[in-house]
Amino acid sequence: MSTFVVVGGDAAGMSAASKAKRENPDLDVVVFEQGEWVSYGACGLPYYIKGEIQSLEDLVSVTPEQFREEREIDLRTGHEVVDIDPDQQTVIAQHEAGEVVQPYDHLLIATGAATVTPPIGGFDKEGVYTLGSMSDGKDLREYVARSREDQDLQQPDRGPACQFLETCSGPVGIVGGGYIGVEMAEALAANDFEVHLFQRGDRILTSFSEATSEAVLDHLDEQDVAVYLNAEVTSFDGDNAVEAVVTNEDHVPVEMVLVGTGVRPRTALAEDAGVELGPTGAIATDSYRETNLPSVYAAGDCAETQHVVTGEPVYIPLALTANRHGRAIGQTVTGERTEGGGVAGTAAVKAFDVEAARTGILNHETAQAAGFDPLTETIDANSRAGYYPEGGTVRVTLTIDRPSGRVLGGSLVSEYGEGAVHRSHALVGAVTEGVSVEDFANYDLAYAPPFNTTWDPVLTAAKVVERRR
Amino acid sequence: MSTFVVVGGDAAGMSAASKAKRENPDLDVVVFEQGEWVSYGACGLPYYIKGEIQSLEDLVSVTPEQFREEREIDLRTGHEVVDIDPDQQTVIAQHEAGEVVQPYDHLLIATGAATVTPPIGGFDKEGVYTLGSMSDGKDLREYVARSREDQDLQQPDRGPACQFLETCSGPVGIVGGGYIGVEMAEALAANDFEVHLFQRGDRILTSFSEATSEAVLDHLDEQDVAVYLNAEVTSFDGDNAVEAVVTNEDHVPVEMVLVGTGVRPRTALAEDAGVELGPTGAIATDSYRETNLPSVYAAGDCAETQHVVTGEPVYIPLALTANRHGRAIGQTVTGERTEGGGVAGTAAVKAFDVEAARTGILNHETAQAAGFDPLTETIDANSRAGYYPEGGTVRVTLTIDRPSGRVLGGSLVSEYGEGAVHRSHALVGAVTEGVSVEDFANYDLAYAPPFNTTWDPVLTAAKVVERRR
Repeated sequence: MSTFVVVGGDAAGMSAASKAKRENPDLDVVVFEQGEWVSYGACGLPYYIKGEIQSLEDLVSVTPEQFREEREIDLRTGHEVVDIDPDQQTVIAQHEAGEVVQPYDHLLIATGAATVTPPIGGFDKEGVYTLGSMSDGKDLREYVARSREDQDLQQPDRGPACQFLETCSGPVGIVGGGYIGVEMAEALAANDFEVHLFQRGDRILTSFSEATSEAVLDHLDEQDVAVYLNAEVTSFDGDNAVEAVVTNEDHVPVEMVLVGTGVRPRTALAEDAGVELGPTGAIATDSYRETNLPSVYAAGDCAETQHVVTGEPVYIPLALTANRHGRAIGQTVTGERTEGGGVAGTAAVKAFDVEAARTGILNHETAQAAGFDPLTETIDANSRAGYYPEGGTVRVTLTIDRPSGRVLGGSLVSEYGEGAVHRSHALVGAVTEGVSVEDFANYDLAYAPPFNTTWDPVLTAAKVVERRR
Repeated sequence: MSTFVVVGGDAAGMSAASKAKRENPDLDVVVFEQGEWVSYGACGLPYYIKGEIQSLEDLVSVTPEQFREEREIDLRTGHEVVDIDPDQQTVIAQHEAGEVVQPYDHLLIATGAATVTPPIGGFDKEGVYTLGSMSDGKDLREYVARSREDQDLQQPDRGPACQFLETCSGPVGIVGGGYIGVEMAEALAANDFEVHLFQRGDRILTSFSEATSEAVLDHLDEQDVAVYLNAEVTSFDGDNAVEAVVTNEDHVPVEMVLVGTGVRPRTALAEDAGVELGPTGAIATDSYRETNLPSVYAAGDCAETQHVVTGEPVYIPLALTANRHGRAIGQTVTGERTEGGGVAGTAAVKAFDVEAARTGILNHETAQAAGFDPLTETIDANSRAGYYPEGGTVRVTLTIDRPSGRVLGGSLVSEYGEGAVHRSHALVGAVTEGVSVEDFANYDLAYAPPFNTTWDPVLTAAKVVERRR
């Protein structure tokens, strides 16, 4: 009987384990997870902290018991894999009561990513948080709950964002203007905190188009989030607890700070076993997610993947890719060799009352490095028929390759509910299939007055950029 | 100097005229429109009748004055073209004050469609309406307004749908369960009419999947619309005014009836000139929308087009196609020969608090006739992350070709605002590009908890149908 061992029990690991067991019930599937949580929706943590989700358990899609009893997966939580021996085809896992040596026929390394700890003085002070795990989420929720209790007692008025509010906590700082930073700004402001967001570069959401970044920035401003661009955070001031964020230009008093400056792949275990990393610093794999070691796979936030436009390796750790690649590996190890597909770098974010999505290649230097001659246009269009009583504006950025007309990437932003994110689905196909903007502009997309204009905004954008070629 | 003559001043005609003039300002562009309205959003009429749009003028995207003054198009409203002489390259138009003979170098026939008048006795009675023009819309709005005035005076309780309402008018009948029927059911019910909808076949919205039809039917039922399936309407009873809809099974008292049983292309003028029709009964064109007569084009609701999946001629008269083909013709006649693309048969509809979209080929007989071996699956999935506080259900139907896996078509339905329509954008690309369901399931679609599950419902549907192959 064959054994499939998985290291790491989140999206990639549990998708692979479930798929493999489903395809071949005779396969022994063993999963080692060092923590207690498996298969959890980390993307939901900001909404848990915000208070819209009542329990951490709600973020768990399948419980450990369900994996064990219903799916018959030998899931061992509290087990840290400390060594892989590819010659013997064994892993060594440590747990409370000792150590176990587990042989494998196929191995999946799905060790995930760790939050980046930037070189900021005072990082270890009380009141400095990151958001990389369920327990981080728990800590932040508890902080919010404590603060709300305090403010209910005191009702202070501590800053400009609070002047129209009955109660206001904080001020609090967020370092980093990516997804986590923006989502946490919403979560904290919804709890009446005065929010200060520090971003190193000259715009937030840097993977989106400049026009999208600008629209979200304007909206954060409307929501009384103080955004500091070009802010190099040098230290967190205070005695035991953080009392201020110090940047190259400012000294901003805060009672708490969340650092969300990205993640790096957890690769130490793999490297020690002789698994090669790729140019991005994440584990290198082929299109079947197999590493340089035979029968050793890697997927999820510890691995790199290939971009559908350039074919080049990229490190874009997101939930769908982890699920998809895990599932493909589950099929492969049970006999049906399956590619899980590349990534288009698609991402979506909600920020208060706006939504945004991006896909493909928007950055001109990246496009040029891949041999394209990029051209970018941005349009603003009605999200629904102009005469329809509801509606707003969708801003669409398209980047194409000028000579061929190929759609390289797109970025959209609209009011929440006006469809920027779901409309991006149209662009993912175009980017993935290498469709020209001319052909794309002729797509027979759905139209009715409550949903769009006759030419959906993505088609209008295509017409405009096509005319500029 | 060259002259481009357009017959018909709605979507196809005005798009062609505008594009041609924009590309070549030296071109003489003459448009003959027999009515007074041009470039109007007929798709908005149900919302005007509902009362959500205050004025008919709001449906007009560009006024006749703007076409004349800003776009320098020689637009002649109140001019009916009665003859085309392709040998002389002239058209004859009649107007109040006489007749004009207009030479052309390029001619576009964009005469649109007329509402079908089914063989129902008593069709000419007072209170029987169709909805094919702006003046039809005006008449219906006036009817609604009169009834509301009456009910404000009387406050009668006339039927089951009214029992929980303060006031109720009607009852009214709708013949036909297509877009118009469903949208008008919403418009009339919103005005407190008791609505009876008669559908000849065994389901409404027959171009959508059975699962979509069923969901919308259930919703109409929740909204107290009485739907009569398999109802063959034989006559409208009454003296001068309609008093009842008579079917093979029922005799339903009504005060008004709207007949929305489809449209047929207006082809008489073209036929008289020797323009050939295609197998669908609409004007045949090549991929440049040129007819059998040189320099004579046809587009919009009078013309057939090619289906992107089968390549076969189809008659699917919808607004985007008219706009797109008009625009392409405008480019072609100014020197840049341009194909406007085929159609995927994409359509969207809002029905009270649900939304639905469809694209491609869903009908198994149609698929088989085109050489495919169709397989259809339907799934219900959460529209957002299960733990996210908002959200509903998206029902997705996918039809694929079993041997190749090619995505042939899809149909979606969800609560209004839960994204069935915009999500269909993903399927249009797959259908148009001939993508296999296996590749489609690997698309890197946008994900974040406020917008979908990690696997968007369209991807989940793809996984499910792929597994069934």
